Amino acid sequence: MYEVELKVRAGHDRVRERLDGIDAESMGTVTQVDTYYDHPVRAFAETDEALRIRRETDGSDEHTKITYKGPLVDADSKTREELETGVNDGETMASVLESVGFDPAATVEKTRERFGYGEYVVTLDTVEGLGEFVEVETEAEEIDPARAGAVDVLERLGLDPDEGIRTSYLGLLLDDG
Amino acid sequence: MYEVELKVRAGHDRVRERLDGIDAESMGTVTQVDTYYDHPVRAFAETDEALRIRRETDGSDEHTKITYKGPLVDADSKTREELETGVNDGETMASVLESVGFDPAATVEKTRERFGYGEYVVTLDTVEGLGEFVEVETEAEEIDPARAGAVDVLERLGLDPDEGIRTSYLGLLLDDG
Repeated sequence: MYEVELKVRAGHDRVRERLDGIDAESMGTVTQVDTYYDHPVRAFAETDEALRIRRETDGSDEHTKITYKGPLVDADSKTREELETGVNDGETMASVLESVGFDPAATVEKTRERFGYGEYVVTLDTVEGLGEFVEVETEAEEIDPARAGAVDVLERLGLDPDEGIRTSYLGLLLDDG
Repeated sequence: MYEVELKVRAGHDRVRERLDGIDAESMGTVTQVDTYYDHPVRAFAETDEALRIRRETDGSDEHTKITYKGPLVDADSKTREELETGVNDGETMASVLESVGFDPAATVEKTRERFGYGEYVVTLDTVEGLGEFVEVETEAEEIDPARAGAVDVLERLGLDPDEGIRTSYLGLLLDDG
């Protein structure tokens, strides 16, 4: 399965109205603190990979996941292979990674409000240090039809697919730095 | 906390009788399949570290853990720092490790019968390709008294602490190979 994702910079108030208009289903809000790690010898910025520990809380429960993101396989839709599994103890997982030579390189913190719309998830992200973004995302075995559908969802929300941002929040933060 | 552990090669039948005699408490039997990984650039055999994924089943439930073992801090008792946490999906965790350059190097498979005796756990291990072993183990903040206690437990089981094996099952298997 591939994660197909389109992202634009957009204020959330107007998009929320549109989501209401198309009867998208609110899926709640979470806070995510992502720590990205540098590989001991591989330059992830050059190989276009990422290794991340994500701590997510919905205000009551906290969950931690470890994620590997492979290089882009489709640049337009930011499609890449993702490997992800939950871990019981985020602090210990972080210590394991640091013990074998991975250094925490950057942290991305955001609140994320999700809406379901058919096969797609629309996400309103407020990213610390960057501002407001809208993402349209789905998982699919075939990239092209999934991407066409995501473009359609963006247009229904009054957003311009041509303004798509291909840079990750991590990349945007590092560019700013 | 340090893991303090003494291990000897010993047939299990006689030790089981002794465990019964000292009223050690049976804690059940599990099967463990351990996969050890080679680091992309660090020679774990030389640095005396290990990174492992352990899949453990008691016949019904399966649990997976990832573990980092640091170098020995006390050679006599095989004491080393351990970092360990549960992961939801062992296959995905293995794929994450392989994606960032860790190669599965060796597998150790064993059945492990545990007994509780005071602060100590006595383990009867039957290791595929190696045979039968007895381990006495505890966790402690101070190494010396924990080690003295482990010696005492071994003697109560009719085993000779001087025959302690400091090589891990992984090491024994690789020596044989």
